[in-house]
Amino acid sequence: MEELINREHKSMTVKILITGGTFDKEYDELNGKLFFKDTHLPEILKLGRCNLNVSIRTLMMIDSLEMNEADRELITTTCLKSEEDKIVITHGTDTMEVTARVLGEANMDKTIVLTGAMIPYKFGSSDGLFNLGNALAFVQALPKGVYVAMNGKYFKWDNVRKNKSSGTFEEIKEA
Amino acid sequence: MEELINREHKSMTVKILITGGTFDKEYDELNGKLFFKDTHLPEILKLGRCNLNVSIRTLMMIDSLEMNEADRELITTTCLKSEEDKIVITHGTDTMEVTARVLGEANMDKTIVLTGAMIPYKFGSSDGLFNLGNALAFVQALPKGVYVAMNGKYFKWDNVRKNKSSGTFEEIKEA
Amino acid sequence: MEELINREHKSMTVKILITGGTFDKEYDELNGKLFFKDTHLPEILKLGRCNLNVSIRTLMMIDSLEMNEADRELITTTCLKSEEDKIVITHGTDTMEVTARVLGEANMDKTIVLTGAMIPYKFGSSDGLFNLGNALAFVQALPKGVYVAMNGKYFKWDNVRKNKSSGTFEEIKEA
Amino acid sequence: MEELINREHKSMTVKILITGGTFDKEYDELNGKLFFKDTHLPEILKLGRCNLNVSIRTLMMIDSLEMNEADRELITTTCLKSEEDKIVITHGTDTMEVTARVLGEANMDKTIVLTGAMIPYKFGSSDGLFNLGNALAFVQALPKGVYVAMNGKYFKWDNVRKNKSSGTFEEIKEA
Repeated sequence: MEELINREHKSMTVKILITGGTFDKEYDELNGKLFFKDTHLPEILKLGRCNLNVSIRTLMMIDSLEMNEADRELITTTCLKSEEDKIVITHGTDTMEVTARVLGEANMDKTIVLTGAMIPYKFGSSDGLFNLGNALAFVQALPKGVYVAMNGKYFKWDNVRKNKSSGTFEEIKEA
Repeated sequence: MEELINREHKSMTVKILITGGTFDKEYDELNGKLFFKDTHLPEILKLGRCNLNVSIRTLMMIDSLEMNEADRELITTTCLKSEEDKIVITHGTDTMEVTARVLGEANMDKTIVLTGAMIPYKFGSSDGLFNLGNALAFVQALPKGVYVAMNGKYFKWDNVRKNKSSGTFEEIKEA
Repeated sequence: MEELINREHKSMTVKILITGGTFDKEYDELNGKLFFKDTHLPEILKLGRCNLNVSIRTLMMIDSLEMNEADRELITTTCLKSEEDKIVITHGTDTMEVTARVLGEANMDKTIVLTGAMIPYKFGSSDGLFNLGNALAFVQALPKGVYVAMNGKYFKWDNVRKNKSSGTFEEIKEA
Repeated sequence: MEELINREHKSMTVKILITGGTFDKEYDELNGKLFFKDTHLPEILKLGRCNLNVSIRTLMMIDSLEMNEADRELITTTCLKSEEDKIVITHGTDTMEVTARVLGEANMDKTIVLTGAMIPYKFGSSDGLFNLGNALAFVQALPKGVYVAMNGKYFKWDNVRKNKSSGTFEEIKEA
């Protein structure tokens, strides 16, 4: 098994799909509102001195509260058609569990990890850099399946929810 | 296997051993030199909104170029005696591969991940937050063994070296 | 004249009045909105290693678009009654010129400098630290009068406006 | 007098002379040492949204403990020959008072303000942005003379010293 892991390691490329979310929000200094411009993923990977082979694609740049069925279908289809079998998706935290469920039920032979941030990356004290570090490691090391990586942990797609009052992710059922 | 992973997940505590390294260096504004004071690990975990159960212990606060055989014996003994079988070690990058080898040859039934930083955490543009995110995820998801987590990748203890001219980690032998 | 400056220097206290504005906005991670909590002035002064005697008072914590006549009357009265004759006011940029005019027309025998920020201090790339540095220096060195300090310059209260399209301050009349 | 100030304001250019110091130190991630590369002044002025006309010239990039008589002569000559009569000099804090004295004794008909930082600008928690804000305001508003701007205050060249134990600047003689 370790050989297998090592062999995969050499040639591996991780697909990163961008969908927006707090992760990529910026502050518009002319109107004082938050908005989306470009993804900060390449900048974050550079900051982290990440040498992993990654292939980044921006699917949408939206707040996950505005994500609809068609958006989730696009995400699912993109995962299905992806050459890479290791996929990280950056996503707003509010409906991350919904997209995880859609992907989980599609039952793909891939490792898919959704992650996000509670504070925009551009606002200095962001958890985004840490979470992306988590997600990129989990996607390399976890067995096939769909997971959410938040708060230093990973959760299976059918056993995760965001606790709206604490802003952290937790399992639905106790062990 | 997935059940096993989930069961471990519930009750798991990750041990974090601090040994110093660039990660924790600070700037002394009175003499303009770099020095060690306290570890920034708790601050970093808070910034990352990490909810993982962790048990942090500072073994030493030194530059890894100054780490000697006795220091590495202390690290090894601490790992051996640790109740937790998932251990992350923060370490200077210059001799990380040496300590990894010592730990690897001790052949423990634990998952041990060494990580560090090229830029001190306090200097703003640090890779430490990303690397710690990597290490804490790899330690949860990789099979038993000793690894180095740097540059978004993991390396087995007997197949890793720091490239001194690029400052990045690489495998010794090609696949 | 230099003696006078030196004498004032020794015993001088600068009053800082907080009114809110972009300067002090924070990001609420639970609802993804910007809001006001506490002022960051003490933290900023500490960061700047400022040893000046200052007396800080929070008058209100509002967006300057919501500032009404009663609010401006409170600011004016507070300046009039202030023991200190050097006063810095942090203020939202959108109506800074309006408050400057009200204060200018009150014709006080004090040096009053309004300043603010285009990016919240907590968002890392803030101009607030620089602007506050400007304002605290101008208030010590300019003759009695009411000024706006933005973009590295000072403007007299009756000759300043915010250019809404560029987000910078400029003089109304050419020289 | 106010007219004079306004008239100067319109056409004014501030000369900024770079000499190095903590302000511009960077961290070399390959050898873990601090070093000088380029000045960060343009970046800092952009961050501060500074619209002042400035003319930046790098005279040297050295630790001020290594500054010798010839270096100080170069600084003095450059000030003397400068078209601008408002000059800011970034300088290491350790011998800032020495250079200030040399410039003060040259008795020029210009306003010259020396400033620096206790923490490198690149290390995130720098006082450099605040100090530069101070210096650029003082140089516009103070009468002709040579000053040090540190810790939110200005000091005359013949009445300033760095307190080595606290790391802050103070007057030599009490009022």
